[in-house]
Amino acid sequence: MTRWVLGIDLGGTNIVAGAVREDGGALTGLRAELTQAVEGPDAVVARIVALGRAVLEDLRAEVPDATVLGVGIGAPGPLDRATGVVRLTPNLGWVDMPLRARVCEPLGLAGALDNDANCAVLGEWWQGAAQGTRHAIGFTLGTGVGGGIIMDGRLYHGASDVAGEVGHITIDANGRRCKCGNDGCLEAYASGPAIARRAAEALAAGAVSSLGMVDPDQLTAQHVYEAAASGDPLARDVVRDTARYLGAGVAALLNIFNPEIVVICGGVTLAGEGLFGPLRQEVARRAFRPAVDACQIVPGALVPSAGVYGAARAFLEQHGHVHA
Amino acid sequence: MTRWVLGIDLGGTNIVAGAVREDGGALTGLRAELTQAVEGPDAVVARIVALGRAVLEDLRAEVPDATVLGVGIGAPGPLDRATGVVRLTPNLGWVDMPLRARVCEPLGLAGALDNDANCAVLGEWWQGAAQGTRHAIGFTLGTGVGGGIIMDGRLYHGASDVAGEVGHITIDANGRRCKCGNDGCLEAYASGPAIARRAAEALAAGAVSSLGMVDPDQLTAQHVYEAAASGDPLARDVVRDTARYLGAGVAALLNIFNPEIVVICGGVTLAGEGLFGPLRQEVARRAFRPAVDACQIVPGALVPSAGVYGAARAFLEQHGHVHA
Repeated sequence: MTRWVLGIDLGGTNIVAGAVREDGGALTGLRAELTQAVEGPDAVVARIVALGRAVLEDLRAEVPDATVLGVGIGAPGPLDRATGVVRLTPNLGWVDMPLRARVCEPLGLAGALDNDANCAVLGEWWQGAAQGTRHAIGFTLGTGVGGGIIMDGRLYHGASDVAGEVGHITIDANGRRCKCGNDGCLEAYASGPAIARRAAEALAAGAVSSLGMVDPDQLTAQHVYEAAASGDPLARDVVRDTARYLGAGVAALLNIFNPEIVVICGGVTLAGEGLFGPLRQEVARRAFRPAVDACQIVPGALVPSAGVYGAARAFLEQHGHVHA
Repeated sequence: MTRWVLGIDLGGTNIVAGAVREDGGALTGLRAELTQAVEGPDAVVARIVALGRAVLEDLRAEVPDATVLGVGIGAPGPLDRATGVVRLTPNLGWVDMPLRARVCEPLGLAGALDNDANCAVLGEWWQGAAQGTRHAIGFTLGTGVGGGIIMDGRLYHGASDVAGEVGHITIDANGRRCKCGNDGCLEAYASGPAIARRAAEALAAGAVSSLGMVDPDQLTAQHVYEAAASGDPLARDVVRDTARYLGAGVAALLNIFNPEIVVICGGVTLAGEGLFGPLRQEVARRAFRPAVDACQIVPGALVPSAGVYGAARAFLEQHGHVHA
């Protein structure tokens, strides 16, 4: 008999789910579906439950003696772990949604809820790029910029489960307005939409680039990464500037946290050394030498399953199955 | 019989020492002397040892049955707790100074070394403004801007004892050059010298102020606080701007750490509501609502003994006399 946890990673675009063995050494039944938040919360919850059931069927087919301990759910936040309620998710349009209960009850499983970015970082720490470290910081670059903090071998949540919002540190007090209402957040420069916007602004200002062939309203960060990979100079500049903005944020976290490792997750890591070269340079220029010397800066290793691993681990931590 | 710890707070300007009872409930023999770093490390070490001896004499006179467990030393700079060596202190001009050994041996006591700003915050958490909280951040505003982080009831040190350098988060990626080499650190705006410099710049640009009577080369942050207290408009503007810069840094830490309390220590707190009013406003404008709602922002309560309490507590923590 082996013990397993169902891990569900709910994002604004996709829902990803899989079954993770209690020791983290195996993942099975990995599946994904579009979130389609426009259909409303009931439809999304129904999709999550159906996806979970399909994963559990896969698991029973593959591992007939599997016991399922419960389900961990990573969701955009802020949220309340104690009650399992998602307080507010601008990307999904939800307010005070009792997501844990609504997923657990139909599945007949115990459950745990945690922030999606926290889960991605926890997954990378448990089974991915930050495995074996005690002090790790992760950044998740996507529609927004999120992250998570592992300190002394535990995911850190703070006083009211809001900790880890590394995308909302100010890197320019008088800079670009962020969706959160603050000025000059890292997210306003390094999220996918911000990357696309900076490319569109450069094109509008007359820059010559293969990106000029894309309808400006349709331009995405993915276009920028692909063009940079093909050697387009404007796209390379946009990636290099992204690395510099990110470098200011990462350097601040090195000076505050002195972590052993910083893991960068998300599509932007496809840019490889085009991102990581200038990022490491910028961090070395900005942060304290002993903090720089102590820290590696690496891409995530578990795309697309980091959030599934992390959601499963969050369940294990919240239900006392693991001890730091 | 009661058990006591000698606490020593070594700063660029002053050395403060006192004896703290193991439970933190009493402090006796508090004494201070000028550091006079220009006389070189041997002279400073001799002064620390003499000050420590004087405190121990006071203690024995007042509490004849006192047992002294050891000495905790708070010192500037990156340092190595394991070896007790101060790696680098620009303000004192020391490199790789084995301070713990050099103080402990003549006193015949066991010892512990920790960062001075960490100690001030630990003191405020143990016996001062942040008593009773689990998650606290402190800022020390003086010649530099330092700080410390208490998480889950423990002082956080990071991978190589550098954690807590909250003065060296970037608040303006293209802003003022900081002494640390980075651009736009909070310290470059909110340290004492930075506050004086901003006032001097405003005067040079033609602002009318009672500060105009001070020789610009002699202008200090203290002059600014005093003039602000007397209602001088320029000085009030400088304090309000300080609050805004500090607010950008504090807001970033709220979004990252979600602490229950932020303690602001240092001379700038003399400005009272002239500082804390706009500071709280700026933080509320910038940080996530659940993080703002969870957090108080208060002045330190233990001037000038926070660092002495904290150094004593650091000794107790490093020598296993307390458990979080």
